[in-house]
Amino acid sequence: MTGFSFTVRATDGAARLGEFQTPHGVVQTPAFMPVGTQGAVKAIRQRDVEETGAEIILANTYHLLLRPGDELIARRGGLHRFIGWARPILTDSGGFQVFSLAQRRVITEEGADFQSHLDGSRYLLTPERATDIQARLGSDVAMVLDECLALPATRDEVASSMTRSIRWADRCRRRLESLRSGPVDGVDVTNRGQAQFGIIQGGVFQDLRNESADATSAIGFEGYAIGGLSVGEPIEEMYAVTEATSRRLPANRPRYLMGAGTPQDLVECVARGIDMFDCVLPTRNARNGQLFTSEGRINIGNARYAEDDGPLDSQCGCYTCRHHSRAYLRHLFMAGEMSAGALNTLHNLSFYLDTMRRIRDAIAFRTFDSFRQGFLRSASRLSVD
Amino acid sequence: MTGFSFTVRATDGAARLGEFQTPHGVVQTPAFMPVGTQGAVKAIRQRDVEETGAEIILANTYHLLLRPGDELIARRGGLHRFIGWARPILTDSGGFQVFSLAQRRVITEEGADFQSHLDGSRYLLTPERATDIQARLGSDVAMVLDECLALPATRDEVASSMTRSIRWADRCRRRLESLRSGPVDGVDVTNRGQAQFGIIQGGVFQDLRNESADATSAIGFEGYAIGGLSVGEPIEEMYAVTEATSRRLPANRPRYLMGAGTPQDLVECVARGIDMFDCVLPTRNARNGQLFTSEGRINIGNARYAEDDGPLDSQCGCYTCRHHSRAYLRHLFMAGEMSAGALNTLHNLSFYLDTMRRIRDAIAFRTFDSFRQGFLRSASRLSVD
Repeated sequence: MTGFSFTVRATDGAARLGEFQTPHGVVQTPAFMPVGTQGAVKAIRQRDVEETGAEIILANTYHLLLRPGDELIARRGGLHRFIGWARPILTDSGGFQVFSLAQRRVITEEGADFQSHLDGSRYLLTPERATDIQARLGSDVAMVLDECLALPATRDEVASSMTRSIRWADRCRRRLESLRSGPVDGVDVTNRGQAQFGIIQGGVFQDLRNESADATSAIGFEGYAIGGLSVGEPIEEMYAVTEATSRRLPANRPRYLMGAGTPQDLVECVARGIDMFDCVLPTRNARNGQLFTSEGRINIGNARYAEDDGPLDSQCGCYTCRHHSRAYLRHLFMAGEMSAGALNTLHNLSFYLDTMRRIRDAIAFRTFDSFRQGFLRSASRLSVD
Repeated sequence: MTGFSFTVRATDGAARLGEFQTPHGVVQTPAFMPVGTQGAVKAIRQRDVEETGAEIILANTYHLLLRPGDELIARRGGLHRFIGWARPILTDSGGFQVFSLAQRRVITEEGADFQSHLDGSRYLLTPERATDIQARLGSDVAMVLDECLALPATRDEVASSMTRSIRWADRCRRRLESLRSGPVDGVDVTNRGQAQFGIIQGGVFQDLRNESADATSAIGFEGYAIGGLSVGEPIEEMYAVTEATSRRLPANRPRYLMGAGTPQDLVECVARGIDMFDCVLPTRNARNGQLFTSEGRINIGNARYAEDDGPLDSQCGCYTCRHHSRAYLRHLFMAGEMSAGALNTLHNLSFYLDTMRRIRDAIAFRTFDSFRQGFLRSASRLSVD
């Protein structure tokens, strides 16, 4: 069983080219992780996800806990076997979904007590339980349980929540160490090489971010995530916090910016030292007909595409762009065909994964800065139509 | 430009093994045509349809007329180019959908006047216009416009509708001959080798069926369809009418049973001389979680599959059965994932197309009768759960 390791192979400014090793293979960084909330990237199949070039996907602990249940998945041999995906998987801890989806939640020092948004049944998610659930799922990277705050929040609220998240991170780590050191009753660990990442909180207060980064690093994780950004703050603030927090984190561990972002965000945050990203934007927008292209975003439902025989993106080599015209994609979208969702998702994810490949190439050739400038120029050439 | 030709290569009882040639390639018969109503087989992509082994798909003239419009499709170079499907396509004439979907329809000798079910706009579908529309779509096989009757209907109503359908068939054929003999103003013919099939009506009255078969054959078409069955009549009546009508039709032309049916119907009607089938059953049932297997139908949402690690059908080699367990397919279905529709559709169509392959092999080896008995035995082993 191979565990987790991370290597930085080249840098260009703060941008880093690297790779991390997991029990299910290598992931090249900077990496984008398509979101497969319920153990499936929406609208497409595992084979399609592989074809986009994705080397790792994200699955949501909250959703899988509620349905079909972590113990059922453990009995299937873990999430990889259950969903038929042989490459790496990262699971979030459920903290953000408890905050954004669950009903009647009560957060105490012990953990989060909430009701399922599906059927109202009660759950208690503690740091220990979040760790156990992810051990049963057997993801390659597990995340600590953190507390997510309703915004706007005062500095005191952010500080108090951040320090609680540090205490929870410590409890998550201790629980993982127990699970690693031997059998724990009732917890069927399905991936012995699972890594665990800490999460830095602190809102837009950089001193709080620094405190969180230092304390979380002191606990010692295989990687570090920046949470609580991309939640509505001005973009320049997001970039500034990312830059300063990233710099504060251990250089020999991967840095993961949670929940970001637009293609521009990926480029801008790689420039600030980020190695990993996840976001629902490419998949959710695809189902709504908003498509990313090398010349900017387009809404495929727009009447101007009704007789457009060209591909969605002449720079793209995905199945959708190789086989279909904008006119046909518009027709499928307007007609409400499920295949519109599939073809659009395939393209948007391909665009994201292709962007990551280009970012990695640019770092390798030490041309990242000129790539970045060119990318931002062409992406802004077309506004959303 | 190759036109249409049909060859019977072997027979076993009334069952026939053959092939027909079209401008977009050869179709082996007996053939099943997946339904791609709006120019797309629901939930899956053209590549997936090809992978099931389908050599021809059906598209609906009514739907494409309403959206995106036959003239728009002609400007794209025809339906094949528009939808990115290089193999043969059969289009129905729109008659059945005018009957089943359109609003405020008024049928006269001239044609069918109706309102779109999408936006209420008015259309007049005459035999000539149905022929023109299909010429613009450029399908490989066009169907004549026939009148479909509300059931139950008296013998007189069926007789009068059947004779009108003969007159309409004659008008369709004459229009096609005009289109073939030279340019017709306003009709951009996108497939010069298009064939046209007549449709036999007459309900369950065999003497009316015979009259329709004789008169329609006398007009002379490249193939003949049996319409107005699979609409609620007892199955033995459907089989009896199919058998007698099939026998009445020219032996050197393909025979197409419209809208049928279950896997058992395919086997039973091949045994009665049918060469072509189309049906929404495999695709529609797939989206509803009802799956066809070599041991009968199953409802994948059933709780008994929650921890079933076996494939949907151990006899099936489709993507779904090769990659996923019943437990995962149930999870996707219960979670409302779009990919459930895609994976289920892929399997059900694969089951249908595989059944057709086994039928053709059995005819070639003159073992069709024992195949038929074995098939019906195993298909009835499991009732729907």
